[in-house]
Amino acid sequence: MRHTMMDFPLTIGGILAHAAKVYGGTEIVSYMPDCSTHRYCVADLASRVARLAGALRELGLQPGDRVATLMWNHYAHLETYFAVPAAGGVLNTLNLRLAPDDIVYIANHAGARFLIVDDDLMPLYERIRARTSFERVIVVPLGGVSAPDAFSDYEHLIAVSNPFANGEPIDENAPVSVCYTSGTTGRPKGVVYSHRALVLHTFCISLPDVFDLSMRKTLALVVPMFHVNGWCLPFAALLTGVRLVLPGPHLDAESLFKLLADEQVILSAGVPSLWHGLIDKLQASPELRAQLSPALHLVVAGSACPESMMVALDRLSIRATHAWGMTELSPVGAFSTLKPHLAQAGSADADQALRYRMKQGLPLPFVEARIMTEQGTARWDGESVGELQVRGPWVAAGYYGDVLPDSWSDDGWLRTGDAAHIDAEGYIQITDRLKDLIKSGGEWISSVALENALMGHEAVKEAAVVAMPDPRWQERPLAFVQLRAGHHAMADDLISHLSTHFTRWWLPDAVEFVDEIPKTSTGKIQKSVLRTRAAELRSRLT
Amino acid sequence: MRHTMMDFPLTIGGILAHAAKVYGGTEIVSYMPDCSTHRYCVADLASRVARLAGALRELGLQPGDRVATLMWNHYAHLETYFAVPAAGGVLNTLNLRLAPDDIVYIANHAGARFLIVDDDLMPLYERIRARTSFERVIVVPLGGVSAPDAFSDYEHLIAVSNPFANGEPIDENAPVSVCYTSGTTGRPKGVVYSHRALVLHTFCISLPDVFDLSMRKTLALVVPMFHVNGWCLPFAALLTGVRLVLPGPHLDAESLFKLLADEQVILSAGVPSLWHGLIDKLQASPELRAQLSPALHLVVAGSACPESMMVALDRLSIRATHAWGMTELSPVGAFSTLKPHLAQAGSADADQALRYRMKQGLPLPFVEARIMTEQGTARWDGESVGELQVRGPWVAAGYYGDVLPDSWSDDGWLRTGDAAHIDAEGYIQITDRLKDLIKSGGEWISSVALENALMGHEAVKEAAVVAMPDPRWQERPLAFVQLRAGHHAMADDLISHLSTHFTRWWLPDAVEFVDEIPKTSTGKIQKSVLRTRAAELRSRLT
Repeated sequence: MRHTMMDFPLTIGGILAHAAKVYGGTEIVSYMPDCSTHRYCVADLASRVARLAGALRELGLQPGDRVATLMWNHYAHLETYFAVPAAGGVLNTLNLRLAPDDIVYIANHAGARFLIVDDDLMPLYERIRARTSFERVIVVPLGGVSAPDAFSDYEHLIAVSNPFANGEPIDENAPVSVCYTSGTTGRPKGVVYSHRALVLHTFCISLPDVFDLSMRKTLALVVPMFHVNGWCLPFAALLTGVRLVLPGPHLDAESLFKLLADEQVILSAGVPSLWHGLIDKLQASPELRAQLSPALHLVVAGSACPESMMVALDRLSIRATHAWGMTELSPVGAFSTLKPHLAQAGSADADQALRYRMKQGLPLPFVEARIMTEQGTARWDGESVGELQVRGPWVAAGYYGDVLPDSWSDDGWLRTGDAAHIDAEGYIQITDRLKDLIKSGGEWISSVALENALMGHEAVKEAAVVAMPDPRWQERPLAFVQLRAGHHAMADDLISHLSTHFTRWWLPDAVEFVDEIPKTSTGKIQKSVLRTRAAELRSRLT
Repeated sequence: MRHTMMDFPLTIGGILAHAAKVYGGTEIVSYMPDCSTHRYCVADLASRVARLAGALRELGLQPGDRVATLMWNHYAHLETYFAVPAAGGVLNTLNLRLAPDDIVYIANHAGARFLIVDDDLMPLYERIRARTSFERVIVVPLGGVSAPDAFSDYEHLIAVSNPFANGEPIDENAPVSVCYTSGTTGRPKGVVYSHRALVLHTFCISLPDVFDLSMRKTLALVVPMFHVNGWCLPFAALLTGVRLVLPGPHLDAESLFKLLADEQVILSAGVPSLWHGLIDKLQASPELRAQLSPALHLVVAGSACPESMMVALDRLSIRATHAWGMTELSPVGAFSTLKPHLAQAGSADADQALRYRMKQGLPLPFVEARIMTEQGTARWDGESVGELQVRGPWVAAGYYGDVLPDSWSDDGWLRTGDAAHIDAEGYIQITDRLKDLIKSGGEWISSVALENALMGHEAVKEAAVVAMPDPRWQERPLAFVQLRAGHHAMADDLISHLSTHFTRWWLPDAVEFVDEIPKTSTGKIQKSVLRTRAAELRSRLT
């Protein structure tokens, strides 16, 4: 017996076609570099996407060609998300916060033929120009001034081109985009996403227990669209008819607050460092909370949410949910929505609820997770730690142009490189990057647990704990601490604070106060830098 | 450039594997024939599914073999939904409300080798036994008594079998189930669903603007599981971790009320006729409303929801949403969730909102809809009527073993046989079955519009309007009306009521009062029967 269903591909174009017909009047708001707002609706987006796809084909784009972007979050970047795959191209969103060397490496590794760049990012382009070889550079005139000679003008191209209509249906296994890992170590690695993978991921993250996207909501897409497919929220917004607000380059606390208030945003998503300033602002002026939607919900992901941030958001009556993802997962893998029986009232239960909410979360449907130890697959008991490994329809099976078989198990699961356990309820808890664990006298010390406890101290803004080489214990923990403005604390105060939480041999041997914890462009702490400093410190000590 | 994602199939087994790991403790409640409740959790379900699949294989089930069921909604039927495809079989849920002739036709047409039957439905099985040729009949001992000789006992099989673990991954294009159209005309036709189609459909109906399924909710699955994959809600419940309540054979108003109240159900779904009794009960005793969840939400589909029912549910503060589907659509195609700008307060706007809510709804993502007239594709203007045609990944491209090319357009869209228009917002409005339109003097009269207006009269419980042959006008409308108990009305009263809504030539030539409107087993009005009676009436009149 054979099925009798239609053979119908899952494509990004299918999402846009639906949106144009069913949510054509839904508004998309962009905050521009000059702080004005640009407003149009989904029907406008769809018609410009068709013309942009036509323009790319007229410029000579062939199926599979890469189109790089160097852009903020705004309508034009959103247009490239749909137009590049519609034209058969592959979108390569360049992270403008990376060092120019890394941008050059990625653009060249991906082999991008085209670049679309915001006019106000032209100075950055000039810094990479000589070392890249884009055949055509298209400038988006956000400031209203046309592109300089030798460049194509984005608006002009859209104005004069014909809408592109592909005669043939697009294969759901064709590529849509290529994103690069931000890699705290080693060279960035490219993951190439198919239409099928991104459509499935988009359906999944739109579910009620994930981002819960619906026509009733306004979503502020503050996670940069140059991060892993914008977490697929651009696609999910169009799938579900959510009203979309794009912040442009304005991610400071003041601008974020204004955007959230003026547009009555109900949902937003971003890395933890994005919310620090907003929280500080609301804590300093609690009366401002009333200007934001009472239903405001922030999804915190991209790196672990500090417990102090979760608690601060709770006190501000801003719903906060922790999520976990990787470039290799399109990117979302787990979402820490609380099960109803874990969310009961009462203070003891509130503590328990917070413990679950701080975990990385429940694996999404069709994301299979396991904990692998040297003895084999570990039980989901909330204690057995091993490497978190995953597989599923939106999980990478390889990297573009790089053979790195160590990143996958022999039986085909992605090795995340994270040490984790999973509890009986199914919540994943990442305890450390495997290489961030500190092995002291043959026993493991979790740097993450120490960091979270340090950040629970009122004087601490941020903390990072790394291994310091030790002649006797092999490794000992060393804490780097950035204090809050106006706060003071001595090393002894912090060690004494930690001693209420941890056994004695877990306590750091030293606390180094720093002006700022070094981070990657995506907000991840650069432990490799800190480990180097720890080793230097050790050599000075001995 | 090729994508680097995993090749990971979308299978029903993937849904269950996820549920067993992540929602293992979530309760599943079944109301048994003796009115007791059976309670177990998702982990129990998963372990019994593996053993049932093992039992089916041990009995000789080969990949592709059909397994028929003749069962109510309860845990064992739920087990077959997962175990049959896990074993490589194809589930064929027989509609126990059909005439035995039709059940025989379907079981034989599907070529089912196995039958699983509830013990209390054995009398029905005995009526079809001689004309069917199941190799093995498995009896579910709901009453606690083992199966009679010559039959296999469902519980015994599960107790002694080994869990089945397929070594090979299941192909997502393998068949899961075959369901038959209830066909108001002609023989039932079979649609064979693939894993891929049902998984995609399941993701889509779980979205916030569709059934909105989450771990926080309790879902009462009152739509019979022998109707089109139980609307895929059994799969969606396991995908999302909703708490599931199954009513067994108890679908009378008293039992439904008790189940909704005792289990604090938040969501339920069923055909309109299912809710009449519940509404009557709550209208008679308004104080009973407080026993139901304040958030109770009923999805009404399967046939058009009368406006009077929607208004009655609104007055009872029970949220009601209209949906539309077909066997050929797995089954859901459209959902009438109101867009926020159509849901404003104010009485004029409330009327507008009701008009939109009464429509069949917005096509689901990836369900493409069009209105085809003799002049080509019609505009979405809310006026241009033509045949509703659809396509998408969970739409049928053919029937099992039957070649009926007239059901598809030349370019491959499913012809629904419904006359409809779509408005600029995207809401589909079915105006009639094409063959139910009445052509009077060369102009069309909508039987559905007349029926809805008649059902707006306080004395009318149900109404059906059909074409009566007419020597002068070719066809004229004739109304069949069933009055509410205790109410009286004359034909003139009803015609006078209609005359406030319609132009004179639309008014029925006659009103026939009947004790009951004839219906199919799935609650659809049998217009073919009424048309025969209309023709008889005409011949008596002349």
